[in-house]
Amino acid sequence: MSISNMQPWLPRVVIVGAGFGGLAAAKKLAGEPLGVTLIDRRNYHLFQPLLYQVATAALSPADIAAPIRGILRNAENCTVLLAKVTGIDPVARTVTTDRGTVPYDHLILATGARHAYFGHDEWEAAAPGLKKIEDATELRRRILIAFERAETESDMAERSRLLTFVVVGGGATGVEMTGAIAELARHALASDFRNIDPRDARVVLVEAGPRVLPVFHPSLSDYAKQTLETMGAEVILNRAVTAVGESGVTLGDDHIESRTVIWAAGVRASPAGKWLDAETDRAGRVIVNPDLSVPTHPDIFVLGDTALLKDEDGRPLPGVATVAEQQGRYVAKLLAARTRGKELPPFRYRNPGILATIGRSRAVAEIGRWRFTGFAAWMLWSFVHIYGLIGFRSRYVVALSWLWAYLTYERGTRLITGSDGAGEPMRPGAEHADHAVVLKRDAA
Amino acid sequence: MSISNMQPWLPRVVIVGAGFGGLAAAKKLAGEPLGVTLIDRRNYHLFQPLLYQVATAALSPADIAAPIRGILRNAENCTVLLAKVTGIDPVARTVTTDRGTVPYDHLILATGARHAYFGHDEWEAAAPGLKKIEDATELRRRILIAFERAETESDMAERSRLLTFVVVGGGATGVEMTGAIAELARHALASDFRNIDPRDARVVLVEAGPRVLPVFHPSLSDYAKQTLETMGAEVILNRAVTAVGESGVTLGDDHIESRTVIWAAGVRASPAGKWLDAETDRAGRVIVNPDLSVPTHPDIFVLGDTALLKDEDGRPLPGVATVAEQQGRYVAKLLAARTRGKELPPFRYRNPGILATIGRSRAVAEIGRWRFTGFAAWMLWSFVHIYGLIGFRSRYVVALSWLWAYLTYERGTRLITGSDGAGEPMRPGAEHADHAVVLKRDAA
Repeated sequence: MSISNMQPWLPRVVIVGAGFGGLAAAKKLAGEPLGVTLIDRRNYHLFQPLLYQVATAALSPADIAAPIRGILRNAENCTVLLAKVTGIDPVARTVTTDRGTVPYDHLILATGARHAYFGHDEWEAAAPGLKKIEDATELRRRILIAFERAETESDMAERSRLLTFVVVGGGATGVEMTGAIAELARHALASDFRNIDPRDARVVLVEAGPRVLPVFHPSLSDYAKQTLETMGAEVILNRAVTAVGESGVTLGDDHIESRTVIWAAGVRASPAGKWLDAETDRAGRVIVNPDLSVPTHPDIFVLGDTALLKDEDGRPLPGVATVAEQQGRYVAKLLAARTRGKELPPFRYRNPGILATIGRSRAVAEIGRWRFTGFAAWMLWSFVHIYGLIGFRSRYVVALSWLWAYLTYERGTRLITGSDGAGEPMRPGAEHADHAVVLKRDAA
Repeated sequence: MSISNMQPWLPRVVIVGAGFGGLAAAKKLAGEPLGVTLIDRRNYHLFQPLLYQVATAALSPADIAAPIRGILRNAENCTVLLAKVTGIDPVARTVTTDRGTVPYDHLILATGARHAYFGHDEWEAAAPGLKKIEDATELRRRILIAFERAETESDMAERSRLLTFVVVGGGATGVEMTGAIAELARHALASDFRNIDPRDARVVLVEAGPRVLPVFHPSLSDYAKQTLETMGAEVILNRAVTAVGESGVTLGDDHIESRTVIWAAGVRASPAGKWLDAETDRAGRVIVNPDLSVPTHPDIFVLGDTALLKDEDGRPLPGVATVAEQQGRYVAKLLAARTRGKELPPFRYRNPGILATIGRSRAVAEIGRWRFTGFAAWMLWSFVHIYGLIGFRSRYVVALSWLWAYLTYERGTRLITGSDGAGEPMRPGAEHADHAVVLKRDAA
């Protein structure tokens, strides 16, 4: 058993959050003369960019999640603690958790973001977002149950509501979810029902801005919109959602009747800013120094989706994995340099390019001034994501799952779990057993 | 869209339950001049013999579950209904479900079994069993959380309780769970903690009878017991459990302190017998005619774990997949023959042999008078189970997962899900945050 991390003469680095940023920092600190404790409320690192594939029955949760302890097994100066952080005492220099109090000399906060409802938290029940594994399996359950309910529904208006899926938000997650649901309905489920034709399903993407994928070049936004339409989805631009409820989504004077709404419209940073009583922007992101430290607390660093840092042009760095990873490595290098009495220049983000997938053989890529679409972009997206997955087994299982899906259009993980099966209502008030008929011939 | 199953002039066969028996019946009835409806409360068929591998973090739920609609996609006379059956009216010849009422001309009940606590249902909270996917992910969560809690526990007695795992019942499931937990502690988790050594974990199998694997030849029972002991587990025979609670398991005057108890000691048939008001044995199994029909209702057939049928020697047929499958195919053939005005001889079980695995390269096999153990039995077990998995993707993913586990001793699905992460207590009263220390050096 290693005890090197418990040497009390080593400066103590505590990292909160084992996402892309926190994990990159911990890995980079391995072997340095620092005692590192990585705290997360989950025992796994989640590869969030592929979470939508769990929600749409293409991958299993374990394919995109790796146990943190396994990743840091050989980092003998790193301890992993499964605990929920409830606060920080910057004077006493301690992190408060439900498993006890952890003292620190240097603190790295990499606690990510949750989806946000622009002040309408009551929309969440009807329009869940996609950040956690439980979010993804719940969305998968709702999407699959909607088809099941439609199959036995005799009321044509209700059947149509059940077969309408609305995705709110036209960023990468919204585009990916829209494309994946359209493919699920048109291919994987196409022949599996007797009373409905899943290809009749309506999949609608609603975006408040003038184009989807706004961080990409406008030509790629156009390609994404046209591609989604080719795949049978509808794209509504320049329309803000004014209400979300059991019966669907309201856009000003219009109402889209739907039983399945997916929220991909905005994020809010985790409560790290509140813990520190630090200055934040409207989305809750902590405004940090160019070295990612908090102005009032030079021993505390905030990074990834939880931090607000601007690039040379004054634009905030995007909430993507590459920013968090580079920031995590930067803070680790900074702390390691300081143990040797050195300093580092301020953090600078090196953009490796952006990618988004729309569907089978369809993606967009923008690398510097180089832009391309279609099969080549999709292959690049596939390789980058498989390469990014931690753990040999995950990589090969995911590669195999994708090859299988590509060849057959099948979805391998179509399980409705997490409730007591069919006995559970899809959501409160959504049960229509009274006027359901079980077989069409009974209604005839 | 196929409507052939809705032809009202066809006799209606309703099958309740898409386990091994119900699914085998539905597949065999495909293409026959009968309108078939398969009802299950789940949308997937579960390959239960490998459920313990989900509980011990070796496989993902989707690896051993296949969507029923996908399996029966090309069986155009088969309709699948996701619904929960609540009763049967044998006079009106209808099945009552939460999605409506389904009329039948012939009814096949294949609703399986649940674990039973010999009249002590209050033990279930402390000692869950293993029948559903949710059971398996809950057990996986409890087992993994126990190691996490032990890592931060300063009270040595509590740490020892957390690192003690008790499996009640020495049948195939109990032996498999015991071996898998021992391997998890001794290999997959061995280097992942800093304050505890998972290899110190105590894994205890308790069996009330004189030997484990009682359906096998005594020499194979001895091999299984010795093998478990070689793997570091303890096997206690001839001791009945008299109490199960938060603090562990009581065996008469003895008490084993444990925070994780797994129940593999008995099953009780599903309530089909009650629905029919039919004669059952003590375990709730319906006593059936030699053609699997119910004595009072010749149009109702009961099979698999829900039925009690004796072999030529007067012993009840075991509750295994092969019995259910052969019975499902038999009833399907019988109904098909009757549409042609023919009859079949009574059902006769052809035992293809029995297999159980204990751990890596260790299994037992008994095929007629041929008995063998070790690597050969383990390879046979592996091939039989991979062959039995439905769906190309599942087979290859499982084969790859097993090869990966064999080469590396890794477990690929070590996820603690289904609760709010670390914030959730392991079970009521089991939280010890007050006297927990976070890092050993803090306690020192």
